[in-house]
Amino acid sequence: MSLINTQVQPFKTTAFVNRDGGKGEFIEITEKNLHGKWSVLIFMPAAFTFNCPTEIEDAADNYAEFQKAGAEVYIVTTDTHFSHKVWHETSPAVGKARFPLVGDPTHQLTNAFGVHIPEEGLALRGTFVINPEGVIKTAEIHDNAIARDVKETVRKLKAAQFVANNPGQVCPAKWNEGAKTLAPSLDLVGKI
Amino acid sequence: MSLINTQVQPFKTTAFVNRDGGKGEFIEITEKNLHGKWSVLIFMPAAFTFNCPTEIEDAADNYAEFQKAGAEVYIVTTDTHFSHKVWHETSPAVGKARFPLVGDPTHQLTNAFGVHIPEEGLALRGTFVINPEGVIKTAEIHDNAIARDVKETVRKLKAAQFVANNPGQVCPAKWNEGAKTLAPSLDLVGKI
Amino acid sequence: MSLINTQVQPFKTTAFVNRDGGKGEFIEITEKNLHGKWSVLIFMPAAFTFNCPTEIEDAADNYAEFQKAGAEVYIVTTDTHFSHKVWHETSPAVGKARFPLVGDPTHQLTNAFGVHIPEEGLALRGTFVINPEGVIKTAEIHDNAIARDVKETVRKLKAAQFVANNPGQVCPAKWNEGAKTLAPSLDLVGKI
Amino acid sequence: MSLINTQVQPFKTTAFVNRDGGKGEFIEITEKNLHGKWSVLIFMPAAFTFNCPTEIEDAADNYAEFQKAGAEVYIVTTDTHFSHKVWHETSPAVGKARFPLVGDPTHQLTNAFGVHIPEEGLALRGTFVINPEGVIKTAEIHDNAIARDVKETVRKLKAAQFVANNPGQVCPAKWNEGAKTLAPSLDLVGKI
Amino acid sequence: MSLINTQVQPFKTTAFVNRDGGKGEFIEITEKNLHGKWSVLIFMPAAFTFNCPTEIEDAADNYAEFQKAGAEVYIVTTDTHFSHKVWHETSPAVGKARFPLVGDPTHQLTNAFGVHIPEEGLALRGTFVINPEGVIKTAEIHDNAIARDVKETVRKLKAAQFVANNPGQVCPAKWNEGAKTLAPSLDLVGKI
Amino acid sequence: MSLINTQVQPFKTTAFVNRDGGKGEFIEITEKNLHGKWSVLIFMPAAFTFNCPTEIEDAADNYAEFQKAGAEVYIVTTDTHFSHKVWHETSPAVGKARFPLVGDPTHQLTNAFGVHIPEEGLALRGTFVINPEGVIKTAEIHDNAIARDVKETVRKLKAAQFVANNPGQVCPAKWNEGAKTLAPSLDLVGKI
Amino acid sequence: MSLINTQVQPFKTTAFVNRDGGKGEFIEITEKNLHGKWSVLIFMPAAFTFNCPTEIEDAADNYAEFQKAGAEVYIVTTDTHFSHKVWHETSPAVGKARFPLVGDPTHQLTNAFGVHIPEEGLALRGTFVINPEGVIKTAEIHDNAIARDVKETVRKLKAAQFVANNPGQVCPAKWNEGAKTLAPSLDLVGKI
Amino acid sequence: MSLINTQVQPFKTTAFVNRDGGKGEFIEITEKNLHGKWSVLIFMPAAFTFNCPTEIEDAADNYAEFQKAGAEVYIVTTDTHFSHKVWHETSPAVGKARFPLVGDPTHQLTNAFGVHIPEEGLALRGTFVINPEGVIKTAEIHDNAIARDVKETVRKLKAAQFVANNPGQVCPAKWNEGAKTLAPSLDLVGKI
Amino acid sequence: MSLINTQVQPFKTTAFVNRDGGKGEFIEITEKNLHGKWSVLIFMPAAFTFNCPTEIEDAADNYAEFQKAGAEVYIVTTDTHFSHKVWHETSPAVGKARFPLVGDPTHQLTNAFGVHIPEEGLALRGTFVINPEGVIKTAEIHDNAIARDVKETVRKLKAAQFVANNPGQVCPAKWNEGAKTLAPSLDLVGKI
Amino acid sequence: MSLINTQVQPFKTTAFVNRDGGKGEFIEITEKNLHGKWSVLIFMPAAFTFNCPTEIEDAADNYAEFQKAGAEVYIVTTDTHFSHKVWHETSPAVGKARFPLVGDPTHQLTNAFGVHIPEEGLALRGTFVINPEGVIKTAEIHDNAIARDVKETVRKLKAAQFVANNPGQVCPAKWNEGAKTLAPSLDLVGKI
Repeated sequence: MSLINTQVQPFKTTAFVNRDGGKGEFIEITEKNLHGKWSVLIFMPAAFTFNCPTEIEDAADNYAEFQKAGAEVYIVTTDTHFSHKVWHETSPAVGKARFPLVGDPTHQLTNAFGVHIPEEGLALRGTFVINPEGVIKTAEIHDNAIARDVKETVRKLKAAQFVANNPGQVCPAKWNEGAKTLAPSLDLVGKI
Repeated sequence: MSLINTQVQPFKTTAFVNRDGGKGEFIEITEKNLHGKWSVLIFMPAAFTFNCPTEIEDAADNYAEFQKAGAEVYIVTTDTHFSHKVWHETSPAVGKARFPLVGDPTHQLTNAFGVHIPEEGLALRGTFVINPEGVIKTAEIHDNAIARDVKETVRKLKAAQFVANNPGQVCPAKWNEGAKTLAPSLDLVGKI
Repeated sequence: MSLINTQVQPFKTTAFVNRDGGKGEFIEITEKNLHGKWSVLIFMPAAFTFNCPTEIEDAADNYAEFQKAGAEVYIVTTDTHFSHKVWHETSPAVGKARFPLVGDPTHQLTNAFGVHIPEEGLALRGTFVINPEGVIKTAEIHDNAIARDVKETVRKLKAAQFVANNPGQVCPAKWNEGAKTLAPSLDLVGKI
Repeated sequence: MSLINTQVQPFKTTAFVNRDGGKGEFIEITEKNLHGKWSVLIFMPAAFTFNCPTEIEDAADNYAEFQKAGAEVYIVTTDTHFSHKVWHETSPAVGKARFPLVGDPTHQLTNAFGVHIPEEGLALRGTFVINPEGVIKTAEIHDNAIARDVKETVRKLKAAQFVANNPGQVCPAKWNEGAKTLAPSLDLVGKI
Repeated sequence: MSLINTQVQPFKTTAFVNRDGGKGEFIEITEKNLHGKWSVLIFMPAAFTFNCPTEIEDAADNYAEFQKAGAEVYIVTTDTHFSHKVWHETSPAVGKARFPLVGDPTHQLTNAFGVHIPEEGLALRGTFVINPEGVIKTAEIHDNAIARDVKETVRKLKAAQFVANNPGQVCPAKWNEGAKTLAPSLDLVGKI
Repeated sequence: MSLINTQVQPFKTTAFVNRDGGKGEFIEITEKNLHGKWSVLIFMPAAFTFNCPTEIEDAADNYAEFQKAGAEVYIVTTDTHFSHKVWHETSPAVGKARFPLVGDPTHQLTNAFGVHIPEEGLALRGTFVINPEGVIKTAEIHDNAIARDVKETVRKLKAAQFVANNPGQVCPAKWNEGAKTLAPSLDLVGKI
Repeated sequence: MSLINTQVQPFKTTAFVNRDGGKGEFIEITEKNLHGKWSVLIFMPAAFTFNCPTEIEDAADNYAEFQKAGAEVYIVTTDTHFSHKVWHETSPAVGKARFPLVGDPTHQLTNAFGVHIPEEGLALRGTFVINPEGVIKTAEIHDNAIARDVKETVRKLKAAQFVANNPGQVCPAKWNEGAKTLAPSLDLVGKI
Repeated sequence: MSLINTQVQPFKTTAFVNRDGGKGEFIEITEKNLHGKWSVLIFMPAAFTFNCPTEIEDAADNYAEFQKAGAEVYIVTTDTHFSHKVWHETSPAVGKARFPLVGDPTHQLTNAFGVHIPEEGLALRGTFVINPEGVIKTAEIHDNAIARDVKETVRKLKAAQFVANNPGQVCPAKWNEGAKTLAPSLDLVGKI
Repeated sequence: MSLINTQVQPFKTTAFVNRDGGKGEFIEITEKNLHGKWSVLIFMPAAFTFNCPTEIEDAADNYAEFQKAGAEVYIVTTDTHFSHKVWHETSPAVGKARFPLVGDPTHQLTNAFGVHIPEEGLALRGTFVINPEGVIKTAEIHDNAIARDVKETVRKLKAAQFVANNPGQVCPAKWNEGAKTLAPSLDLVGKI
Repeated sequence: MSLINTQVQPFKTTAFVNRDGGKGEFIEITEKNLHGKWSVLIFMPAAFTFNCPTEIEDAADNYAEFQKAGAEVYIVTTDTHFSHKVWHETSPAVGKARFPLVGDPTHQLTNAFGVHIPEEGLALRGTFVINPEGVIKTAEIHDNAIARDVKETVRKLKAAQFVANNPGQVCPAKWNEGAKTLAPSLDLVGKI
C-alpha cells in the first residue's frame, strides 16, 4: 500500500546544519520536527558521491522559495552526521546548503519511507512532501542513476498547500501557482 | 520496500483504445505488452471526474514526444473498459487520447503498483516509467487532489533512457535532454 | 450455507438517484437504509452494457407496483456513482429509473451477497427481497447471459409480504396476490 | 461465493421414480446422471407437508414442457426413498409425478447446494438449472413459507438453453421463447 | 469410551404420538422429558421399512409392562415427525403404538447415542435404558439385519430398577423379577 | 461412532484355559484367534467378585450350544492370567469354564471395545458377537450392577449367523432359530 | 530427572489389610496416608507369582523392626484388592503380612513412581523410602528376575531417619545403626 | 519411565585411572567400554567431600570380588579428570581405588542416568548394574546424605549374573550366591 | 549481540576465598556482590591445569593495583568450591590468591557471559571489566591455548574508570593512567 | 555462545585501500580474503570522529610488525568506502594507513561479529585475530569510550601463531615472543 495520506512514523536521529555560514551544529531530529510546518524530505544514496551534490545544490538554489512557502528541506542519507559535516566543509556544492543534512546510520528513515536498498545499505532517490500534520501528500522515487528536478518539487508543494488551504478545490494537470483550479460538483461529472 | 528496480507482476485486463479517431476497439492488455519498449503507466481515480480529464489531455498533448521516445502511454482506472469507451466518446478532453485507457475492475493493477485505496475502491494518482525489460525505474504518487505535470514525466523517461543507453554515466539534478551528465570515478569521490 | 433468513451485513457506499427527472443527486447508502421498509436489491454486471439497461427499464416499468407495495428498488453494479450518473444521462432505458443506482467499487456489497466474480471484478445477476428487519427472504442468481423477469420479483415480494402479515399461512405454488393460501395443521399432514 | 458456473459436486443417493403409473422402482442417482442433458433440481423441505405437494403438482403439470426441452426434473428432500414411495402412493398431488423423487437423508445434496437448514435437518426451497456439462446456470432460493412458480423455471431453462445454443447472444429482461435477443458488440456499448 | 453411566446430552426435536387412538398430536421432546421417570430409547433405521414395524409392534405388545414399571418408550428414526404420523396411520403394526415416535432429521440423537451411520444418514438398531436422572444404564446395538427382543429389554429395565432401589445388591446372571440377588461383601470375595 | 460393523483392532495378551478338567495351560491370544470362526467376547469387571462367577457359570452352562453353533467364548477382565488360574481353581462356578479366561492387565482390549472405566481400571459388562472376518455384529453393555442373560446372546449369535448365511433376508423382532424371516423388497415398503 | 527429594503425587486406591489374623478389611489409601510417619513402598509385578511371595515374607519377617522405627510398609501390585485378599488367604508366605497390600489397577501409582512396564501392565520391583513430609529419600529398582533384600531397606530407612534427626551429619558408606557418622566442614574438605 | 532394561545412551568423557599404584593415566571412556563385560556405575556428588571417599574406599575394599565376578567399577562425579587425579593423590581413601574415576563436567552421564541435580550441578548417589549388552538391570538412588553399602551392590550383581546365566530361574528375596532359586511354572502359580 | 553495556544477569554460587593466609572460607556470591564497586571477572578452564595457575599468579601479583583502583578480582571455573580449596592449598601459584575463586558447577556464569564450551563443560579464557552498576564495559575472550596479560586488564580498568569519572572525555589508543585524553566536540570532527 | 573457534560468516563489501601513498583504489572484500594468511579485524564506530584516528594511527605505527608476522589488518566501520577515501585524504592520522579501510553500510560484518549497536547503527570497538583457516582465535570488545592498545593485539597474534605452529604447547600468562611456554602433561596436573 502507498504511504500517501499516512502519518510519518516516529524516528530519532542527528543532523548537521549550518544555517549561517558559521561552523554549524549537530541537532537532534525526530518526527516532531515535522509538525507545525510543511516539510520536504529528500533522500539520496551517499555522501561524497556524484549526483548527490548536484541535487543538494539544486535544493539550495531554490531554498528561498521553499522558505517563502513556509517549508523546511531535509536531505537524508544513511551516512553519519560526522560525514555530513565533513561533506559540507569539503564540497563546494554541498557547502551551499543552509538546511539540515540528516544522518540515518540506523536505517530507520530509509526503511520507514520504503526507499532502503538492503543489499547496499543506501537510500534510493526519494522525495516526499509532508503537511504540517505529519501526513505524506506526495512521493517520488527514482533509480539512483536518475536525478530529480527541484522545480517540480516546488510545484507539488504549492499545489499541496493550495488544496489544503482551499477545501473543495483541486489542482488540475500541470497546475502552477496562480493557475486556475477546479471545484468538483455533481454538475461537472462527465462534463470535462 | 520500494517497487523501483522490481519486475512488473503478471496481470490481465481489457482496455479501450482509439488510435485513429474511428470508433476504437477493446484490446486485452497483459504484462507482456510492456516488454520490448518503454512504457508509462498513469493511474488516476475514476472516469467522469474532474482532474482526470485534464491529466489525460496533458498526456495527449505530449503524446507525440512519448512516441518519438519510443514509449507507450497507458491510463489506468478501476472502471471497466465499457466506461472508458463512453468517457472517450463524451469527454472532449479524454476524446483526444490515442493511447489505451485500461480498465482495472479486479484491482489487480492498482494493488500491484501499491496505489489502491481500499476504502474507496479507487487508485491514487501514480505514474511509473518502465523499461523494455518490464522493470520499474521511477515512481511518483500524489494525493488525489494534486495533479501531475506530464512534462516532468517526459524528462524522467528521457533520463532513464539516457542512462540505460550510456552505461557508466548518470544524469545530475534537473537534467534535460542534451544537458551534461556525470561519469562516476574514484577521482570524483568527495570532489563535487 | 444460504443467505436466506440471515441479516444483511453492514456496508457504506454512494448512489446516484434521480427521483424527479431533475439533475439528480449523490446519496450515501448503508444497511440502515434497508430498515423499516421492504427492499429489492438487483445486482447486475456493468454500466453501459447490454442486458443491464433492459433490466433497469423493466424495473422502472414496474416501479409503481413496488412503490404501492411499500418497497424500494436498488440497482447495484461495481461501477462508481460517477459512471451511474453518466449512464442515467446517456441511456434512454436507464434514464427512466427513479430509484437509486448504487456504486460498489469496493466490492463490499457484491461480496456480502455472494455474487462477486473475482476474475472479472463484476457482479452476477442477483435479486434479493429483504424484509423491513433487514432479513433476506428470497434470492435469485443467474449466469450473466440470462436476464430476469421483474414480474416474478413482484410476485415473490408480495408472497413474502403476505406470509409476514398472515402468520400461520403459507403461499402455495405459483401463488399470486389474491389467490388461496394454506394453513398448515396436523390434519393436513399427508393429505395434500 | 455463488454456485453459478461451478460444477455440481459428486454425490450418491437413492430415488423413487414411477415413470408409468405402475408400481415404480428405486434407482441410484449420482452426479453422473446430470451429465448429457439439462437438469432441474427442485429442493423442498419434507414429504407429507403442505406447500410441497402443490409445487410437485405444478412441476408435474409442466413436465411435458420440460421433456420437450430435453430436461429432467428432480425433486429432492432430506427424507428417505422409502418415504417418497409412500408419499407418491398416498398423495393425489405427488402421485402425478413421473420424475424422480430423490432422498437425501445424508444431507449431501442439501449441503452441496447450500440449502441446508442445520437446526431443522431440512432443505430450503431451492431451484437450480444445470447444463449438460453439470454446470449450475441459475439458482433461486426462498424462505420455506414462499412457494415457487414453475413457469418462471421453464423460462429460465429456455433462456439458458438459448444462450448455450447461440453463442454471442444474450437474453434481455423478461425474455420468453421466441422473443428478441441481443448480440453484445462495441457499437452497443453505452447505447441501450 | 462407553456411554454407560454418562448423562444424556441436551437435544430438541419433535415427535408424533397417538396415546388414545384419536388423531394424535405433535409434541416437542428434549432431554428434560427424560427426567423424573425411567425411559427406554429404541433407535431403528427408517419409517416404512421391514423389521422396524415388527419391533414397534413388539414394543407395543409389551407397553403395558413398561408402563407398570413406570417407564416411557421412545421410538427414534432420522425421519421427520410428518413421516411418523403417516407411518402410524398406514401401518397396522406401527398403528398399535401409544408411545412417541421421535423424528431426528438433524441427526442430533443418533450422533449423541453413537448409532449414526454417516454413509446412510440412518440409525443402527440401538436400545438404551435411562434412569430418572437421565443417566444411561444399559446399551445394546445391532447390525440392522438383526432385530431385538423386547422381553430382554424389559428384563434389563427391571434389573436396573431393582439395583437402583436396593443399594448394596446386584442382579446376577439371567436375573428376572423375583429372583435372588447378591449383596457384595468382603466375605464373598473369592467365594462364589 | 458405534463399533458395529468395524474390524476388531490388533491386540496380544495371555489367557488361562482349562479345556479338559486337567491343570490347564497359559496361551497367547491375539486378534488372529478371532478369524475363521464366530466369537463371543464377554467382558466383566474383576476376578473373585460377585456377579462375575454367576455370569461365567451361565456361559459354561450354555457352552455346548455355542460350540454347536461353531462359536468360541472368551471371558475378559483386566486381571492377569495368574489371577485367572487361581480363580478357576478356587471358584466352583468359574471352575466349570472350558473356554479361555483372558487377562487384560495392559487395558488394550477394554479400551479397544470401549468398555474401560478409567477411574477404576476395570471393564464394564460388555458382550460382543464377532463374525469369522473379525467384524463386530452386536454389542451389549451394562452398568456393572446389572448382569446379562446368556440365552439372549445365543439368540443374537444365531440371528447374526442366519442373516450371514441367507443374504437378502432379515430377522424380525424376537426372532429365534427356526422362526420366520423377512425378505425386504419394494413391494413391502410401507406395507408392514 | 530422579524422584529423589520430590513430593509423592496425589493418588487414591484400595488396599486389603489383615492386621490381626482375623478376616481383614478393605481400606482406601491416598497420598495423605503417607504423611506423618515414615513409609516404605514396595512394588512387585503380580499376585500369585513366584518371587513376590518370598519378598512379602521377607518384609513380614522384618515388620517388627519397621514398626519399631515408626514406619509403615505398603506392598503394591497392579492387581485389584480382591486378588490381594485371595492371595493373602491362599498363600502361606503372603498370609504372614500384617501391612496393607495395595491394589493399583488404574496404574496411577506405578506410573507416578516410574516403575510401570507398559507392554505388560505390571510393575518393576521398586522400593521407595518416604519421609513423614511425603518426600522420597531413596529409590531402588530391579529387573523383575532379581529380588531385593529387606535388611538393606531397613538400613536405608534408619540412615534416612538418622540424618533427618541430626542435621549437619551424614551417614558414610555401609553405615548401620550406631556406627560413626560425619559432620561436613571446611576443615574436612580434601582431607578424607 | 524407569531406566531398567533400557540401553545406556552414547557418551564420551575422560577418566583418571591408576591400576597399579604408579602415576596413573587419563583414558577416554564411552558407552562402548561398557560392552562385553558387566559394569557397575557409582555416581557421587563431588571430589574432596565427605561421604564420597568412604564410599570409594568401600568399593576399593570389595574390588577383588567385583573382579572375580568379571565386572568393572566406575566412579562418576561432575568434576574434571584433573580433579580426580589430584583427589587420588591426596586422599588416603580415594588413593586405594584401582578402577576409573570418571569426570562428567558436561553433565552427559548424570543427565542420562537421571541423577543430575540442576540447581547444584552435582550428581545424586546412584548405583547402576549394567550387563555386557549395555542394558541396565538394577538402579539405586539416594539423597546425598545417605551413603550406600557396596556389599548389597555385590549381591545384586551376582543375582543379575545368575539369572542371566540360568534362563528360566529367578532369585528370590535376599538371595545370596549359592542360595536356592525358583523356576517359575504353571504349577507354582498361586502356590507360594 | 555484544554483552558490552548490558547488565550482569542474576546468579548464585559458592566461592572459596582466603584473604589472609589463614584457612579461608566458603562464601556465597551473587550478582549483588558486583554492585557498588568495580569488578574484574576472569574465567579459565579448569583447576589443577597448566596455564590457569600462571594466570592466577599474574592476577595475584597485580592485586595490590586492583585494590588501589577499588576493584575486586574473581577467578571463575566450572569446578566446585571444594576443588578450589584444594587447589589453593596444593598449588604454590594459586596459593598466592587473596581474592575469591568462584565455583560454577551449574554453568550459570559461563553461559551468562557466553564463554561456555558445551562439548567440554569448561570455560573459555574470558575477562570482563564491570562497573559499580553491574554493567559490563570491556570483554576479552581467547582460545584456551592463549593466556592473557593482566597488565592490559589493569589498563582497561583504569581507562573505564577515567571515562566514568570524567564525562565528556574519551581515552585514545594505548592510553595509560596519566596520559592525555580527548574531549569530543564539533570542532574536532574530521580534524584528527 | 562465544565466536571463539567458529568460522567467519560469508560477507561481501567494498574497502578503500592506499598501499603506496598514491591515490588508492576501491576493492571488493569477502570472507575469502581472510583465507590463507592471518587477519586482524579492527572495528570502530565512525569515520571523522575522535578516538578512531588515534587507533588507526596506532595500527599504522605497528603495521610493519603485523606484516612481518604475515598478517593483514582491516579497519571496519559502518560508513561507506566513499567516506573512507575522504577520511584517508583529510586526516593526517588516518592517512598513514596502508591497509584496507572496510565499509559496512549494510551492517553485515558488525552483526556477524556481534559488535553492532542497533540504536546507533555503529560498531563497538572490537578486535578479532583470525587464523588462515578463517577461524576466530581471540576477541576483544570495548565500550566506545575506551580505546585499545595495538601492542596487546600484536602479543595475542604472536601467541596464537606460536600455539598453531607448536602443537602440544600453550602460552602462559603475559607470554611474549621468545618467552617460555608450557607442554601440558599428566605429570603437570595439579603441580603448577
